[in-house]
Order: sequence, then C-alpha cells, then structure tokens
Amino acid sequence: MQFTKMHGLGNDFIIVAGMKQVHENVNQLAVRMCDRNFGIGADGLVYILPSAAADFQMRIFNSDGSEPEQCGNAIRCVGKYVYDHRLTDQTTIRVETKAGIQTLELTVTDKRVQSVRVDMGVPILQGLQIPTAIDQDVVLQVPISADGFQSTFTAVSMGNPHCVIMMDRLADLPFDQVGPALEVHPYFPKKTNVEFVEVHAPKEVTMRVWERGAGETLACGTGACAVCVAGVLAGRTERRVLVHLKGGDLEIEWSQTDNHVYMTGPAVEVFQGQWLLSCLNTGKMA
Amino acid sequence: MQFTKMHGLGNDFIIVAGMKQVHENVNQLAVRMCDRNFGIGADGLVYILPSAAADFQMRIFNSDGSEPEQCGNAIRCVGKYVYDHRLTDQTTIRVETKAGIQTLELTVTDKRVQSVRVDMGVPILQGLQIPTAIDQDVVLQVPISADGFQSTFTAVSMGNPHCVIMMDRLADLPFDQVGPALEVHPYFPKKTNVEFVEVHAPKEVTMRVWERGAGETLACGTGACAVCVAGVLAGRTERRVLVHLKGGDLEIEWSQTDNHVYMTGPAVEVFQGQWLLSCLNTGKMA
Repeated sequence: MQFTKMHGLGNDFIIVAGMKQVHENVNQLAVRMCDRNFGIGADGLVYILPSAAADFQMRIFNSDGSEPEQCGNAIRCVGKYVYDHRLTDQTTIRVETKAGIQTLELTVTDKRVQSVRVDMGVPILQGLQIPTAIDQDVVLQVPISADGFQSTFTAVSMGNPHCVIMMDRLADLPFDQVGPALEVHPYFPKKTNVEFVEVHAPKEVTMRVWERGAGETLACGTGACAVCVAGVLAGRTERRVLVHLKGGDLEIEWSQTDNHVYMTGPAVEVFQGQWLLSCLNTGKMA
Repeated sequence: MQFTKMHGLGNDFIIVAGMKQVHENVNQLAVRMCDRNFGIGADGLVYILPSAAADFQMRIFNSDGSEPEQCGNAIRCVGKYVYDHRLTDQTTIRVETKAGIQTLELTVTDKRVQSVRVDMGVPILQGLQIPTAIDQDVVLQVPISADGFQSTFTAVSMGNPHCVIMMDRLADLPFDQVGPALEVHPYFPKKTNVEFVEVHAPKEVTMRVWERGAGETLACGTGACAVCVAGVLAGRTERRVLVHLKGGDLEIEWSQTDNHVYMTGPAVEVFQGQWLLSCLNTGKMA
C-alpha cells in the first residue's frame, strides 16, 4: 500500500491518495498505521478522495481511530499533495470536509507548493457562546488567576474555546503548571485551550499552546487564529501577524472585509513509502 | 535515499543498506531522520555495511545522535534484513559490532526469517562487578525497600546492571513510583535497570522493565536475559524460559554448556521508503 508522509509544523500525517473510498475497518487501520513503534507513525491518517461537490474530499482519522471534522495542519498537507503530485494544476482548490467545503490558496515556486492559505472561518466572541461563564459581548483582558499565576485573558472561539494570555516574557512562565490549571478554570465550562503569547511587535508574536485534552503541542492552527483575534481586540497586534510556534511559523490574517480568519502556513513532504502486509505480524511468539 | 523501517518488539529502526560507509555528519542525520514528527521517526538509525572481519558490519546511531556499542533488538532486525533481502543465503551469520563479532542463528520459514537467536554473552554475578554496593559472589534474593515498597531482589549484569524483583502479581504494582525509586537505590552506585517479574510457570514469565535513564520501555533484551538468570539462581525458572514483555515475547536460554545467555526473538519489516531531500525544509517562514 503506497503512502506519503507529510507534516504541517510537525503535526504529521500519512497521506493516502488514488482510492475511491476509505479502506474497510479504517478506524482500526488508522490505529495500526499511526502507531509510532509498530506502524508507520503519525498523528493521523488522511485520505484524499474524489468529491461530487468540490475538487477533492479529505477524510482524516486520528491515531486513536476517531474521525475529527477538520484539521488545519492536515488540510495544508492535502493542498500541497494534490498540486505537487499533479492531481490538479489549479492554485485555488476547494476541499470537501466533514466541516463543509474549504477553499485553499496555494503559493507555488518552482512547481512546488511553498505555503497554503486556509479560510478558518469567523471567530466567536460572545462570552456564553465560546463558551465561558462570562455573559459579555466580548471577554477582553479579564483578570484571571490559577495556581498562583495572575494575569488577564481574552477569550475567543474558532469552533473551539481559547484562553489567550499576553505576557512580557514567555521564558519566565511555569508553563507545565499554569497550562493545565487554566485548562480547567471555572470560567470555561467545557474546559479550554490556553495560549501564552509574547508580543514582539504589532506584526510578530511567539506563542506556546496547551491544548485541551492533549497538553502542549508543537502547533495549533485555531490557537494561532485566536491569538491574532485577541491581539487585535486588545490593541496589541495588527490584523496580519506572524506567529512563531514550537513547530514553525504561521501567518494569520483576520480580514476586515469578511471577518474571516485566514491561516497561511507550510506543508512538508518527508518520504514516500510502501507499507507491507507483514507489518500485521505483531511479533508474538507465544 | 532508500530505507527500510523495522522493529524488534516495538524498538524501531531505520535500516540503511548498500552503502560502503556511514554518511557524513551521521550523528546529525540520525537526529533528523529519527525525529517522530519532522522526520521518519525511529529509536535508531542502523547501517548494514561491509566487514573485513565478519559477514556484515552493523553500526547504530540513537535518536540523540550517540553511537551505542550494541543493541539486541536492532541486531535481530539486521539478521532478518540480510536474509530476506537476499544479501546472504546463510542462516548462521556473523556481524561485526563495536562490542565485537556477534553470531546470529536465523530461523527461516517460506524464505523469510521468523526469529533470530543472538548470543548475549556471559552474565556477571559478582556484586561489586555488577556493580552493586554488596561484596558477595552472588546477590541473590536480598531484601530491598524503596518508597514504601518492600521485596527482595537478585542482581545480574549483562554488560549493564539489572535489579530483578519477582512478585506474585504484577497488576498490583505501583510501577511508576517504584521503578524510578529503585533505579537510584543506594545498592546500585551506577543506578540500575529494574525488572518486575511474575512467574507463571518455570518456563514462562511476564515482566515489566524500567530502563535506567529511559523509564518504562516496550522491551529490554538484556533485561529479559537478566530475568532468566535470576530465575534460575532463585530456583524459580528453568534455564530456558519464554518472557512476555509489553512489546512482545523473547525466548531466553542460559546455556549450561558455555554459560552464555541466548536470546531468541522476532524482527518485523514494516515498510520501505524513499526519504526526500525536501524534508530538510523545516517549514520556517520567518
């Protein structure tokens, strides 16, 4: 079985193309293929399939076998794959996902995709809708404390809740204590992702993200979008900002024209592989 | 660059063959290729090279770039690779390693290697040589306690120190507390690997291993050897025992004839791949 391994800011995927539909038992297959010791190893298994409604369809299965609706890092890999592998010669492509049809803009140099721009939708700012426990139109720079840490936060939903905290120096942060403490803060009835942000300049920030249910990750696309929105609301950043994450950089733009947030970032092809049936041998001798 | 991904009990390796010597900057290359998000992902990079002194030479580089002398799980993969890929038609092969020449015995079914037997050498039992703080010819079933846990241990060196603890039920063990506490117990001046063993029958045991400096791992070849030796010394196992580890099974024999310990276990080929130069693109946009 042919596959291609790609990543977007270190969030890594097994890409399978050229099939009409997903494999039978795809959930179990994703668990086996994504296993980092016994399988190929990845955060997810991504199928690029035909679509009646758009140019392509993307379906993604996490390493636990579950099927999320969407993934900003994976869809950038899909954009690079279909162009670099000559499945399309367009640089604007529409991809059907479980969250609807998403439009990608590809930046191409030397016949290779260098970066992909993804429409991440409209941010939700109303406190109860995010959801937070605060019934305000905007939850902006509200004091918060947890585990001895005191600061202010701005809340933004990009489909999932984010608690954005701007601070002078990320290096001083006891991240591993404060991240999990804020994740379950009573202000957030469904828990929250937490972004800690150091603003270098109105166009450039560095962030670390504590993801709800996952802990620290290399990159979180919706988190970077939330940081841009919070930065604009707080008057700390412009509407277009370069965000440095552990896994690499994203350029985020909160458009004044249509209120959508646009994420531009890289996708990288690492290797092509041929998965062997013998990998189903678990090595048990008993 | 062509490679093959293999594993022995989940201890996984990128196998590179067909070269006369290792790549320049191999230590950095190993770090990059072994990275589980940005690279291929593995515990180590293994070269199969020509040898003037044996049939083949193996060199292995860990994911941190360091070069260990030997690895029992990796050398089984080498044994399977050279036979399955027709680099040899012998079933007894000699492999040059930094720890000397090791002889492998291959068990073949349908022209594929099913398991590989590796000579793991002579166990060291003298207390100070292991090293322990106990100056006895054998450190056998000595009382030990750490972090509220009380038991007895037998100490064995297979080139590295092991503290083997036999118990009635592994399921009752607070492994994550006791493992690290015993690793640094004052009885072991250079710290120790710790094996917790449930003896089902004289020919069959289950173990969990806390590796010195690494924490729990799926499998530890020298640990399984130490368990067999300790079981024989304590009169709990026979000289040939099936050892169940988290990553799979090993058959260990402590030979009465030559006093060597022999480890027999599987190796599995998972996929073949072609690594791309573009993976050197880190995805930075700054």
